[in-house]
Amino acid sequence: MFVRELSREECIALVSSHHIGRLACARDDQPYIVPIQYAFTANRLYGFSMPGQKVDWMRANPLVCVQIDAFSDRGSWKSAVIYGKYRELPDTPQGHQERLQAWSLLEKRTNWWEPGGLKPAEQTVVGTSPHLFFVIEIDEMTGRAAGEDAVDVSSH
Amino acid sequence: MFVRELSREECIALVSSHHIGRLACARDDQPYIVPIQYAFTANRLYGFSMPGQKVDWMRANPLVCVQIDAFSDRGSWKSAVIYGKYRELPDTPQGHQERLQAWSLLEKRTNWWEPGGLKPAEQTVVGTSPHLFFVIEIDEMTGRAAGEDAVDVSSH
Repeated sequence: MFVRELSREECIALVSSHHIGRLACARDDQPYIVPIQYAFTANRLYGFSMPGQKVDWMRANPLVCVQIDAFSDRGSWKSAVIYGKYRELPDTPQGHQERLQAWSLLEKRTNWWEPGGLKPAEQTVVGTSPHLFFVIEIDEMTGRAAGEDAVDVSSH
Repeated sequence: MFVRELSREECIALVSSHHIGRLACARDDQPYIVPIQYAFTANRLYGFSMPGQKVDWMRANPLVCVQIDAFSDRGSWKSAVIYGKYRELPDTPQGHQERLQAWSLLEKRTNWWEPGGLKPAEQTVVGTSPHLFFVIEIDEMTGRAAGEDAVDVSSH
């Protein structure tokens, strides 16, 4: 078994086939990690969140890192690392269409019981709920794999 | 199902029963996440790494965050977040004993094929190998759980 770099296409395949990752933000040189649910499309990750520490930090510093991995029972693994910038989708008439697009992508994969979830009725989410929708604009995406033949990237 | 805070004892139980987490470091406000293998003892995480980006960044800025989680097949989860400081265990006669202690803890759980692994012979690791040993001194540890009855924290 050896470690090798993933191609961009392999990174996209890994990120596309999952919907839970770990997001890190930073404030005053202190990083902070949380699990997030996401939807990937066209060089963007869409996500949603309740207000709180990570949103406060990303508003102050939009530079983030998202990491997605897959482990197999046989010990092989793949991991992708994304550098990107946080951009909030405002709850305004102008932002309504992009929030609807984000939610239409997210609702296909996200589960209310998973971290960051608490999925209310759809109309509430895109309307007046306290949920925030955001985009991570991807600047760079790299990845590594070891013993990859055994990794099933189709699950979780 | 609801989300609740974990007590310190529950965080310790979660972190103690796992050996893979995600570590974030930061440079110039840009966070970076990598999976790590660790051993937890007495308010410290021990880890080891090949030289590279995360070591370079942690040498420049020792503030890190480590996140450990457990998901069950039934959708429940627990997550612990640790704020701490990176401290390298130097390969010097004075540091030899602490490196041996780190390795004695790590070798019980770590697997060379997992991320950060590439486990060589033990003597090589604590002696002249390119592996670096480090400690994360824990400043703060918090956690959350949802639907926790279904989470088996004893695996992974």
